[in-house]
Amino acid sequence: MPKQTLPLHANGAHRNSTHYHHHHPNTRNPPRSPAPSPARRALKNHLVAASGEFVGTFLFLFFGFATHLMAVAQAGEVALGTTTGDGGGTAGGKSAQTVVVVALGYGMSLLVAVWALYRISGGLFNPAVTLGLCLAGQLPWARGLIFLPTQLLAGMVAAALVQCMFPGDIRTLNTTLSPGTTVAQGVFIEMFLTAELVFAVLMLAAEKSKDTFIAPVGIGLALFVAELAGVYYTGGSLNPTRSFGPAVAGTWFPGYHWIYWVGPFLGAIVSAGYYHFVKYFNYEEANPGQDASNEDFVAD
Amino acid sequence: MPKQTLPLHANGAHRNSTHYHHHHPNTRNPPRSPAPSPARRALKNHLVAASGEFVGTFLFLFFGFATHLMAVAQAGEVALGTTTGDGGGTAGGKSAQTVVVVALGYGMSLLVAVWALYRISGGLFNPAVTLGLCLAGQLPWARGLIFLPTQLLAGMVAAALVQCMFPGDIRTLNTTLSPGTTVAQGVFIEMFLTAELVFAVLMLAAEKSKDTFIAPVGIGLALFVAELAGVYYTGGSLNPTRSFGPAVAGTWFPGYHWIYWVGPFLGAIVSAGYYHFVKYFNYEEANPGQDASNEDFVAD
Amino acid sequence: MPKQTLPLHANGAHRNSTHYHHHHPNTRNPPRSPAPSPARRALKNHLVAASGEFVGTFLFLFFGFATHLMAVAQAGEVALGTTTGDGGGTAGGKSAQTVVVVALGYGMSLLVAVWALYRISGGLFNPAVTLGLCLAGQLPWARGLIFLPTQLLAGMVAAALVQCMFPGDIRTLNTTLSPGTTVAQGVFIEMFLTAELVFAVLMLAAEKSKDTFIAPVGIGLALFVAELAGVYYTGGSLNPTRSFGPAVAGTWFPGYHWIYWVGPFLGAIVSAGYYHFVKYFNYEEANPGQDASNEDFVAD
Amino acid sequence: MPKQTLPLHANGAHRNSTHYHHHHPNTRNPPRSPAPSPARRALKNHLVAASGEFVGTFLFLFFGFATHLMAVAQAGEVALGTTTGDGGGTAGGKSAQTVVVVALGYGMSLLVAVWALYRISGGLFNPAVTLGLCLAGQLPWARGLIFLPTQLLAGMVAAALVQCMFPGDIRTLNTTLSPGTTVAQGVFIEMFLTAELVFAVLMLAAEKSKDTFIAPVGIGLALFVAELAGVYYTGGSLNPTRSFGPAVAGTWFPGYHWIYWVGPFLGAIVSAGYYHFVKYFNYEEANPGQDASNEDFVAD
Repeated sequence: MPKQTLPLHANGAHRNSTHYHHHHPNTRNPPRSPAPSPARRALKNHLVAASGEFVGTFLFLFFGFATHLMAVAQAGEVALGTTTGDGGGTAGGKSAQTVVVVALGYGMSLLVAVWALYRISGGLFNPAVTLGLCLAGQLPWARGLIFLPTQLLAGMVAAALVQCMFPGDIRTLNTTLSPGTTVAQGVFIEMFLTAELVFAVLMLAAEKSKDTFIAPVGIGLALFVAELAGVYYTGGSLNPTRSFGPAVAGTWFPGYHWIYWVGPFLGAIVSAGYYHFVKYFNYEEANPGQDASNEDFVAD
Repeated sequence: MPKQTLPLHANGAHRNSTHYHHHHPNTRNPPRSPAPSPARRALKNHLVAASGEFVGTFLFLFFGFATHLMAVAQAGEVALGTTTGDGGGTAGGKSAQTVVVVALGYGMSLLVAVWALYRISGGLFNPAVTLGLCLAGQLPWARGLIFLPTQLLAGMVAAALVQCMFPGDIRTLNTTLSPGTTVAQGVFIEMFLTAELVFAVLMLAAEKSKDTFIAPVGIGLALFVAELAGVYYTGGSLNPTRSFGPAVAGTWFPGYHWIYWVGPFLGAIVSAGYYHFVKYFNYEEANPGQDASNEDFVAD
Repeated sequence: MPKQTLPLHANGAHRNSTHYHHHHPNTRNPPRSPAPSPARRALKNHLVAASGEFVGTFLFLFFGFATHLMAVAQAGEVALGTTTGDGGGTAGGKSAQTVVVVALGYGMSLLVAVWALYRISGGLFNPAVTLGLCLAGQLPWARGLIFLPTQLLAGMVAAALVQCMFPGDIRTLNTTLSPGTTVAQGVFIEMFLTAELVFAVLMLAAEKSKDTFIAPVGIGLALFVAELAGVYYTGGSLNPTRSFGPAVAGTWFPGYHWIYWVGPFLGAIVSAGYYHFVKYFNYEEANPGQDASNEDFVAD
Repeated sequence: MPKQTLPLHANGAHRNSTHYHHHHPNTRNPPRSPAPSPARRALKNHLVAASGEFVGTFLFLFFGFATHLMAVAQAGEVALGTTTGDGGGTAGGKSAQTVVVVALGYGMSLLVAVWALYRISGGLFNPAVTLGLCLAGQLPWARGLIFLPTQLLAGMVAAALVQCMFPGDIRTLNTTLSPGTTVAQGVFIEMFLTAELVFAVLMLAAEKSKDTFIAPVGIGLALFVAELAGVYYTGGSLNPTRSFGPAVAGTWFPGYHWIYWVGPFLGAIVSAGYYHFVKYFNYEEANPGQDASNEDFVAD
């Protein structure tokens, strides 16, 4: 589409500009119209970010829930459960192919929603990711506290709308443990799954590098990988909002619903801890130039 | 392939050049041969863009239709419809696996067609996206009016050619509502699906950022996600052209064909509205530096 | 891995350097050691490029053939052929799921092979792509003539090695027409499929833009999309080498083997023609700033 | 998330900065605090890198193993084995669909783990890749020797944890030869598969170019492609660690376990050899400007 000639202030140009040389710095900071008071501006920014967080969490979960609903209702096969040879498999039940469809639904939906909204809200859409970023010092706690109810509300709205707008039973979207998976295993599975997602967010989006602008791709794929591994065993939540919404909409909570809060939060704590470890030891020195392009060798 | 030494005017170099500092502006704007009149040039540009829109819409739908035709005719399983436990599933019918094939067909086909043609026409290929961009002030209404018949024509040609060139029944490509989905639900499903696609186009392609050059990847994945969620319930149109083409070629319109016009257009309006909202409140200030690379910290 | 301090001449730094300002041009072109004669250097370059073309074509087809062999031998379902309701489907035979596996095999294999080798040989791996680039003026005809036998040889070696190293019948890898697809339809299907692939190569790799460095991703996805649409109906060749190799290794040629030469070459001609059309009319002016980032608005 | 104003030293800014022109070099290299002794710093860097290698190898294999376990236990179909027509297919057994799930598990898991950790450790996670980089002169042998036991330990921990935390039999994760595949074929299949992966690492990550920052995407897709081709026939190891971990955790080694060491190491040697070949002949001259953007034509 044709380039719009937008005023400097409105199109965010200043924000991302890469000032390679600053011969005439005065021309780079043009006088602006009188700004609102800092407090009002901070409030406005929190509200705009929260609106993006609401829209993004809603879109992420609405598309994920709809795909999940379809995948379960329209499954084309059940697991044979005769392949392992030692009785480890469960006869019947959700097949590996259905797991792939569910993982695509949540993973790709997160990828697209984060990409579309991460310049507005940061694209967290998940209380565990929010906690991880706050612990890592990458998100102010005030904004984290604003995001938490926003995310929970968006999850409930998404689940309720999916219930209204699609034929099928919203309760099939609950995250539940598979036969053979204990509650203790479930907590730790969710912990490990979430740890990878949060660490990907920290290293790709919070740590600024040449990859940051496509961090949404890596974040979406991290959820996809975690879903592949976890959907069958725990439902692959990684996100209290994702588990809470359908439980509220279907007015049915499994007795172990708490594991979808404790597991993801533990994972966020683990990831933030390792993040502080590598930052403390200046990980950048361990492997310098990793994403350098050959342009860097030419310079001066 | 070896670099061709092309004259400046012909290879588009001027268009994308990033002039960081302009010490010698005269050397950057070499004298050109006398230009045609502005009106002739504008007409020429509209026609070149329309040619790209025709080719791109044709390629997008030709590949999508052919994959869809194959997926339906060669489906390897039907939905079991016994998984939900509450009768929500429909016994038999299109399985989740077939939905994935169809979603890959349309989503990846859009990705590739947009990538190949978006520097020529902008890569809309969809009247709803066209409306969204016009409403958002990112596309002149005149060009939008030229694109509309071009897109519809390309969709009809694609459907007719698929009918001629492939064995199978073109009427299987119509977008139809699944059993249990009402017409009202269909309108709103199409609205939400299209809203995400249009919002992805607005934030990735229309809003200029570091991600703009790979916007086609995000746009294709947005359609893929929407198709995963929608193919079973409404056919996953999101695009009047996609529904209109096979209906014309197969000379069969479902009675509710209008929902594939009203739903997508409503979605475009919703997205353009939220876009204006975040622009009005300068969303760039809510979350600054989101896609900064660490180069930005160095500069001066 | 740690950055190697390589001499300027050896690491290709000069090639891609983006000289934004040239205050001291003498320091950018250091004196070089006496070069070999131009003719010897040109010969050396042709041979290095041909070695890359051999390795890349071999890797692309070796992985594609092995995946194809597995997909056909280990298919988990046959097409039901009862879904279309009008007899259009073929009972039994290759299912849509098997088509997806084959399409992933060739498409992703091409993506990876092109990415790994396109700085060495250009990453064509296909006589039709070679023809398209020569017709578009993006590849010297001399190099095209060197590449043709290299590609054919690599295809034969890949097919022969797959026959030796994997259990299974190499003849299942031949590209064949599905029941119901006529030879005339096959030619035109292959033409359209190849046209999209060649056009993607021209617009992403040959036309230099911000996307050029990830052109291999778009090229691989273009083949994936074409395979989804075409594998069932024509085998999805798009590439005389891909059809020729297994035919030689299995010493069995279908009577219509010629369509896998004529169809792809016609597609290359069509794409090169449209490429010349949009270049002649300076398509860059039709839609300026399409892949601009917001950095561009800042400059001076 | 909001941009953190980090000190120059801590955020790696210096490392990737692209100094286009150096008018005031003194301001670019601010005085630093007194550094620790070089030996201590080198040791610290080796340990930080090894910690990243442990975490990354663990995450890669933990998610891959969990997905593999699920895919085998929950397979929805067995191979029909009647398609090839010559008895080449094996009746029953792992189907092509199950292979795709396993390939997604390992390939996408590697992609995400490398992306998250390659700025910390380089993201090798594989003794064969380590050998290839050492042979190519891109990794010091000392660090390679530190990485080898780290990777093996991480693989064993991942396999043991998967055994504890998931229902199912860890022995189903062993890499084994399919019926009809001989030990000699297995060695060479693993060699070719690994050769592509190592060559992709060398050309995308070790060779610095505009693509280097997204090398993890190409590396993950390279493993995905290799897994598609190899999972059925040899288990698709490409990595002694991946084969060793489940063998230890399940205390069961197939008699030909050695092929998963010899094959990958041979592949690394082959790739490093071709890498030296193209470097010796200055492959950059064979195809100059391959990833140039049109910005390059403008410069001065």
